[in-house]
Amino acid sequence: MNQRELLKILESVKARKLSPAKAIERLKHLPFEDLGFAKVDHHRALRQGFAEVVLGKGKTPQQVAEIVKAMLRKKDSRHNILVTRADRQIFAAVKKASRSAKFHEVSGIIAIERTAEISGKGTILVVSAGTSDIPVAEEALLTARMMGNRVEHLYDVGVAGIHRLLEHREKLAQARVIICVAGMEGALPSVVGGLVAAPVIAVPTSVGYGASFGGIAALLGMLNSCASNVTVVNIDNGFGAACVASCINRI
Amino acid sequence: MNQRELLKILESVKARKLSPAKAIERLKHLPFEDLGFAKVDHHRALRQGFAEVVLGKGKTPQQVAEIVKAMLRKKDSRHNILVTRADRQIFAAVKKASRSAKFHEVSGIIAIERTAEISGKGTILVVSAGTSDIPVAEEALLTARMMGNRVEHLYDVGVAGIHRLLEHREKLAQARVIICVAGMEGALPSVVGGLVAAPVIAVPTSVGYGASFGGIAALLGMLNSCASNVTVVNIDNGFGAACVASCINRI
Amino acid sequence: MNQRELLKILESVKARKLSPAKAIERLKHLPFEDLGFAKVDHHRALRQGFAEVVLGKGKTPQQVAEIVKAMLRKKDSRHNILVTRADRQIFAAVKKASRSAKFHEVSGIIAIERTAEISGKGTILVVSAGTSDIPVAEEALLTARMMGNRVEHLYDVGVAGIHRLLEHREKLAQARVIICVAGMEGALPSVVGGLVAAPVIAVPTSVGYGASFGGIAALLGMLNSCASNVTVVNIDNGFGAACVASCINRI
Amino acid sequence: MNQRELLKILESVKARKLSPAKAIERLKHLPFEDLGFAKVDHHRALRQGFAEVVLGKGKTPQQVAEIVKAMLRKKDSRHNILVTRADRQIFAAVKKASRSAKFHEVSGIIAIERTAEISGKGTILVVSAGTSDIPVAEEALLTARMMGNRVEHLYDVGVAGIHRLLEHREKLAQARVIICVAGMEGALPSVVGGLVAAPVIAVPTSVGYGASFGGIAALLGMLNSCASNVTVVNIDNGFGAACVASCINRI
Amino acid sequence: MNQRELLKILESVKARKLSPAKAIERLKHLPFEDLGFAKVDHHRALRQGFAEVVLGKGKTPQQVAEIVKAMLRKKDSRHNILVTRADRQIFAAVKKASRSAKFHEVSGIIAIERTAEISGKGTILVVSAGTSDIPVAEEALLTARMMGNRVEHLYDVGVAGIHRLLEHREKLAQARVIICVAGMEGALPSVVGGLVAAPVIAVPTSVGYGASFGGIAALLGMLNSCASNVTVVNIDNGFGAACVASCINRI
Amino acid sequence: MNQRELLKILESVKARKLSPAKAIERLKHLPFEDLGFAKVDHHRALRQGFAEVVLGKGKTPQQVAEIVKAMLRKKDSRHNILVTRADRQIFAAVKKASRSAKFHEVSGIIAIERTAEISGKGTILVVSAGTSDIPVAEEALLTARMMGNRVEHLYDVGVAGIHRLLEHREKLAQARVIICVAGMEGALPSVVGGLVAAPVIAVPTSVGYGASFGGIAALLGMLNSCASNVTVVNIDNGFGAACVASCINRI
Amino acid sequence: MNQRELLKILESVKARKLSPAKAIERLKHLPFEDLGFAKVDHHRALRQGFAEVVLGKGKTPQQVAEIVKAMLRKKDSRHNILVTRADRQIFAAVKKASRSAKFHEVSGIIAIERTAEISGKGTILVVSAGTSDIPVAEEALLTARMMGNRVEHLYDVGVAGIHRLLEHREKLAQARVIICVAGMEGALPSVVGGLVAAPVIAVPTSVGYGASFGGIAALLGMLNSCASNVTVVNIDNGFGAACVASCINRI
Amino acid sequence: MNQRELLKILESVKARKLSPAKAIERLKHLPFEDLGFAKVDHHRALRQGFAEVVLGKGKTPQQVAEIVKAMLRKKDSRHNILVTRADRQIFAAVKKASRSAKFHEVSGIIAIERTAEISGKGTILVVSAGTSDIPVAEEALLTARMMGNRVEHLYDVGVAGIHRLLEHREKLAQARVIICVAGMEGALPSVVGGLVAAPVIAVPTSVGYGASFGGIAALLGMLNSCASNVTVVNIDNGFGAACVASCINRI
Repeated sequence: MNQRELLKILESVKARKLSPAKAIERLKHLPFEDLGFAKVDHHRALRQGFAEVVLGKGKTPQQVAEIVKAMLRKKDSRHNILVTRADRQIFAAVKKASRSAKFHEVSGIIAIERTAEISGKGTILVVSAGTSDIPVAEEALLTARMMGNRVEHLYDVGVAGIHRLLEHREKLAQARVIICVAGMEGALPSVVGGLVAAPVIAVPTSVGYGASFGGIAALLGMLNSCASNVTVVNIDNGFGAACVASCINRI
Repeated sequence: MNQRELLKILESVKARKLSPAKAIERLKHLPFEDLGFAKVDHHRALRQGFAEVVLGKGKTPQQVAEIVKAMLRKKDSRHNILVTRADRQIFAAVKKASRSAKFHEVSGIIAIERTAEISGKGTILVVSAGTSDIPVAEEALLTARMMGNRVEHLYDVGVAGIHRLLEHREKLAQARVIICVAGMEGALPSVVGGLVAAPVIAVPTSVGYGASFGGIAALLGMLNSCASNVTVVNIDNGFGAACVASCINRI
Repeated sequence: MNQRELLKILESVKARKLSPAKAIERLKHLPFEDLGFAKVDHHRALRQGFAEVVLGKGKTPQQVAEIVKAMLRKKDSRHNILVTRADRQIFAAVKKASRSAKFHEVSGIIAIERTAEISGKGTILVVSAGTSDIPVAEEALLTARMMGNRVEHLYDVGVAGIHRLLEHREKLAQARVIICVAGMEGALPSVVGGLVAAPVIAVPTSVGYGASFGGIAALLGMLNSCASNVTVVNIDNGFGAACVASCINRI
Repeated sequence: MNQRELLKILESVKARKLSPAKAIERLKHLPFEDLGFAKVDHHRALRQGFAEVVLGKGKTPQQVAEIVKAMLRKKDSRHNILVTRADRQIFAAVKKASRSAKFHEVSGIIAIERTAEISGKGTILVVSAGTSDIPVAEEALLTARMMGNRVEHLYDVGVAGIHRLLEHREKLAQARVIICVAGMEGALPSVVGGLVAAPVIAVPTSVGYGASFGGIAALLGMLNSCASNVTVVNIDNGFGAACVASCINRI
Repeated sequence: MNQRELLKILESVKARKLSPAKAIERLKHLPFEDLGFAKVDHHRALRQGFAEVVLGKGKTPQQVAEIVKAMLRKKDSRHNILVTRADRQIFAAVKKASRSAKFHEVSGIIAIERTAEISGKGTILVVSAGTSDIPVAEEALLTARMMGNRVEHLYDVGVAGIHRLLEHREKLAQARVIICVAGMEGALPSVVGGLVAAPVIAVPTSVGYGASFGGIAALLGMLNSCASNVTVVNIDNGFGAACVASCINRI
Repeated sequence: MNQRELLKILESVKARKLSPAKAIERLKHLPFEDLGFAKVDHHRALRQGFAEVVLGKGKTPQQVAEIVKAMLRKKDSRHNILVTRADRQIFAAVKKASRSAKFHEVSGIIAIERTAEISGKGTILVVSAGTSDIPVAEEALLTARMMGNRVEHLYDVGVAGIHRLLEHREKLAQARVIICVAGMEGALPSVVGGLVAAPVIAVPTSVGYGASFGGIAALLGMLNSCASNVTVVNIDNGFGAACVASCINRI
Repeated sequence: MNQRELLKILESVKARKLSPAKAIERLKHLPFEDLGFAKVDHHRALRQGFAEVVLGKGKTPQQVAEIVKAMLRKKDSRHNILVTRADRQIFAAVKKASRSAKFHEVSGIIAIERTAEISGKGTILVVSAGTSDIPVAEEALLTARMMGNRVEHLYDVGVAGIHRLLEHREKLAQARVIICVAGMEGALPSVVGGLVAAPVIAVPTSVGYGASFGGIAALLGMLNSCASNVTVVNIDNGFGAACVASCINRI
Repeated sequence: MNQRELLKILESVKARKLSPAKAIERLKHLPFEDLGFAKVDHHRALRQGFAEVVLGKGKTPQQVAEIVKAMLRKKDSRHNILVTRADRQIFAAVKKASRSAKFHEVSGIIAIERTAEISGKGTILVVSAGTSDIPVAEEALLTARMMGNRVEHLYDVGVAGIHRLLEHREKLAQARVIICVAGMEGALPSVVGGLVAAPVIAVPTSVGYGASFGGIAALLGMLNSCASNVTVVNIDNGFGAACVASCINRI
């Protein structure tokens, strides 16, 4: 290992077999990550307490199962394990690797819960506009929960029936971070953002037809939100929204 | 004139110089508008009671003034005259043609009011989201008024401060047609549409920056509105919205 | 019910068990819709006489059937029930819930007619350009009829054979509202709009190939219509056009 | 000249100073255009009788004047000379080079007419939708005329007032080629194409605002025309349309 | 029939039961197409000698067969019959209606040849860039032939191997109209256009991947062609190109 | 005040001048914000300690000065005042309203600092890629500071010289929230996001040319970031990024 | 053959049966490629030592097998043979034509290796961002190897974990040409470009979802790269990148 | 300096004041660039022999002059100095800093030539399509020359007059790298790429109008080039093309 190589150089200096000047020369040619740089990444993982995540889409059931097994072998980690964008075939393979794996079909998430510890400071509230936005909302909800957050949800509160949303202002006010999922015109985050002081993570969905262009209309709507506490993630990216929300909820 | 030509043919038939069969042959080759078709257009104008309109943009002040003078010469018409997308130069020229011409600088409309008659059955309400949407909203408001409608307005009621809009639900409920003007994410028509039973004409504005793309974000938002009583006109087309609203308000 | 809660508070004030100041505190925390707000929505439904609608697409046959059953249970409502964007599987499930359900395969609409009452004041005319636009046109036609309107149609009158349209000018002139359905270049609403005084709701369809871009060409054509009585709804949104037309036809 | 080089090789073969095999080697290395290829181009110019054209835009007045002078020096050519997309400055410079130069301000064309000979077989008719399309229409008209065609025009016959177009069906029917210029929704070529048997060259213009996107709406409308005798050139390309029409009118 | 109505009016005039002035009034209210307008369309068909065409795509095999049968019943017409964008199922159904139907699988065209008469004045040459452009090229070729034109083709002469095209300059020079089919960068029409004096109809194809965007790259390339004898039709519209070419070849 | 109105109703109930049933009727017609709703908004402002902000763009210098004066008149508020997207003319007018106004020309911000109180819990770090991104970065920096946050910056650390960024990993690690400003390919947030555990607010800028399309390339890059702690605001929206960061830094 | 024709002409000149002038006339009408032009192409192939390539996509297994057989028949060529975008069916057919054919399923390439000769001067390094980019990376790698280059690869070194890339700076520095494959935000080429002096060929992949728009985000990111040694090929075009890299590696 | 810090640590080890294990700990926390990393960048500059470059656009004349002065002060560097996208004002300021500064107005480049040394191995040929592409072509040409390459050019050889290009095949064949500049349909690189074995760097220009969309048409054309030795840089990026070409010409 590189630590050893470095030690050897330093021992040589100590033993005066190598002058400090020469040692500098050799140190310069060592890949810097050997000096511990790679550990930064490791530390980050520890600090964040994030779950371990596998993107199921584009992998064979066997590949996913292999990765999950490798995660399970790391005895010192007790992080929850998530497989996103999975299907029944992937679940069958993962189930064999871990009996405690559960499949949430609506969101396409396989979850292996190894800890129920809550590390987020407040509640993450997932709000969604229409019933067809629920799969993306659920992806966000489950991800946020598996990453150690208290979560709540509020579904089917689209802006064309504004009173449905206003009924729940208390719930909105109590959330530390809000994830707001909407397709079609993507107007919900603007209204929600205007009602609360918390940061709002807007997730456009590909729900809609015609000029919704697979979520572009909602995405543009959210980027142009007139509420100043709204930021945006990629179309259908419930997982990403939960990551950001989780990361905010921990600070 | 063509009426005369037709009369001549018929007189020939009457005088038996022309057989009915031959007359048919000749009639077939007459442009049909000679049979009075062009008048349909004229009749439509009468039925609609619409104002006479000149698009100022792309014309010289002199050209606009000439057209206005021609309109004023038609003694039998008492329609109001509108010049849209005008500026101070155009106004100076039009003012000479008609002392009663007035220039509304915010909306860029020159109006020559010749009748204050109200022909629309109910009130047209113009609602707008932000202060920068006001020029387009005013274009709609003035056009609707000059076309013989009772008009009201409700400005600066964007969705990020939803209570400002909700305060005026009574006003919204009383309108027969609503014109809803918004830039940025264009979410206002969805919220308004959900609060009323009247038809809502949505006008996207080019207000915004970056990913608003000159009004495309608002346009897409409105086309994808989750409220089912919303239709859309072109970006910044306050004039067009007023025409449609006027036409609905008359039926 | 919430009315009751409010009454209870007021009775307590009357009974001097609760001071007005304390009552205010409690009133503030009542969701405002409890103060009658939610009824607005209810009233709107009553006023509009709109059919009850389920979007079939994206729901399982069972889910649709459950919703339809719930609608049928509401004994006091006699609204027609529509399932849009349905298929044979959905129909099979709905048929079990209601024997009177009928499936219009071309438009993908399941209709349960419970009333034939006409509440619209005039006729809604659905005009379409090509034979491939008929599914969207039929969606509009059926929806409009089920919402209590007298409907007529005029199909296959595309602008490249302008005489086919002109033959029917009388029919066009008699309509109170016109829905104009067209794909490809979407030119029909401009021509129709120029022939009538009624409002024209333009529906772009995704019919075409290549540079029609799934209806964008038609959509842009309609938004840029040179006829001033034209408004536009989303691509393939025959249902939405009928809602707006219905809402205009009732005022 | 290259002919000479080739002749020299062949004379050497004739004189037996060069073997046929060696001659082949040398011939292979001659640029092929030396074999008369370049003349093809020359012949084409002669065959087509096209005018000589300078694109004024992006050149200084001096540069344009120089090119025009060079054209005037070619004593054997009597082609008309056109400068397109020119302005007053360019005209001032060109005027000095040729007293007979004339500036058509609307279309931005400077024309030096050296022949009035008609080489096109029929009439090219330029049809345009709105008054703002006239500059592009005039560019087409003047170009076509200067290229030796009989030309006619029919302006302000947009589809929202279809009877204005229908009045002139005879004129439409008599044209050998039609150039159809329209902005906004670009619907005119479809209607015109449906009325005639002649080829229709459609020219989208950048006229319009908002969702006309600088002519894209019109362009897409024309590409998706439901009339099968319509082809399209670039936005605002009146010149190009005239070139194609001229080339068709000569065959 | 309307002819009769007209006759009746004229007979009344002749019989002096109706004054010419009154007759005019009544004529105005007759739909103009009753005066023979619809025949214009009929005449056009005769003049053009175009084949009768059914778009197979989006129709059931039975529907297509019915239409074909109706065409075959019109005893006085000897036009060829084309079904475009057809498949094996459609062919099976059409074959039953007409034994002489032939299916060209590459282009998806079913042809019923009833006449081999050549009415086009010159040769239409179909040029294509790559082997994958051949289906569109064949659609153009077959359509042009069935519409009574002499046709030739030149395939696989893409611009990255320019000598393959240049070898055939003679063939290019002899064509009266050229149809130029290309996907990817769509550069072929510019090169071909520069080599000939004939009009070039450019057909972009959806061949390519990535940034070819289903033919947009080729379409834009062709619209921006630096050759001035190039016009463009819709993506993959081999049929349309043949219609235009045919219509040019007849004048 | 509305509280008073409500009190009056309740006192009447207490005094039995008004029955509870009648009281309900009257309560229904009170605008709901009278029940304290409007205060939520007010409270939110207090909780957030946000600065008062005027968007300078699109307003006249006089209008901006008037608004600032009104803000200054509210004696009980000590919030800082910001005018964004201002210019020298606006500054001249504002300067007259408040001597302590300062103009930061690079970012176009006028600031009237009335409090230096720090209410944010940690440091907001503004990172930018190129020197041309600095105006947007400065808008973010100043806004964040005026909203009561400790701020730091790190400019000119674009990814094509990755070592410049890596030198400052300590600074990156210490920030509680990071605002990451970049034009062109917008890659910086992905790299920064991978180095830290804090949330990263990405701001695409319109810096670049050609295929940067006024910031679209950067926007898309950021939306597709492979780092899971990145969210995005509108192009050039440094102000919005600071609002969100501020709002996160307060929780 | 054409050489013979030319020889015959020259022999006739030598034999004085043909005058040099007449010979010129006849030479002009010979297709110029007969003068050896076609050989240029042939020579280019020899110089480049490129493999022979068949695009599998869009061809039937039989068609591909036929082409491969034809290639194998050319006895004098020892180039490697590649079939790109192939599948198992195509492989089955090709396998019959050549037993030594091997199918690389990940990249969809069938390779018939006939020479292992290395003609490239240095090493081509293929770098890729995520695991889903590997198919495109492998297409590039295999193509480059079969074209006679020493190749290396470095996978899964996306910019959100920058240390993974930095660990391999030595490898990066040693490459003569780098192919850099990335989807999503496409940031990798900018970072790699900043670390090396070699030319970097960037390949955007269609990996991603939502606003990645099938590779457009990555494509734009790469075109706007702030590193000045980066050029770009089409989305998913691993093959093309290898061709360019190969061509650079040979000079 | 950091070298010193490192030296100090090593001296402490040597002096046995610090154990090797403790030294490792401290080394880990040193920013790695202190170990000489930053020099890599420096070395790269030396190796490449690239000119020093200032982007003039977006900087004041004074700022540019300051940067140039700083460059001139580095006594040990003899690199040429380039200011790109400059204008007359910037030149006036730079001229004062260096008398030998020269302004090439067409390309907007200011060059201070300090060495005429040629370090590129072959010739870089810049080919351009139309006269309006020359500014971008000149930017490429001058940049390449100032970076130590032998350069040649070939202008006005657009594909619509293919013989003009073919005349110069020898010149094309002799280039080691070709930069190919074209606007409009961007077809030139495909044709050039097919004629040579050298790598072709394609530069789309924003030349054109209408559907050229500021260079998008040319960009897409080049990305979809059917020639396999073509790569692409950003629109109008003549400078970038020269950097890549220079970097290839040195390997």
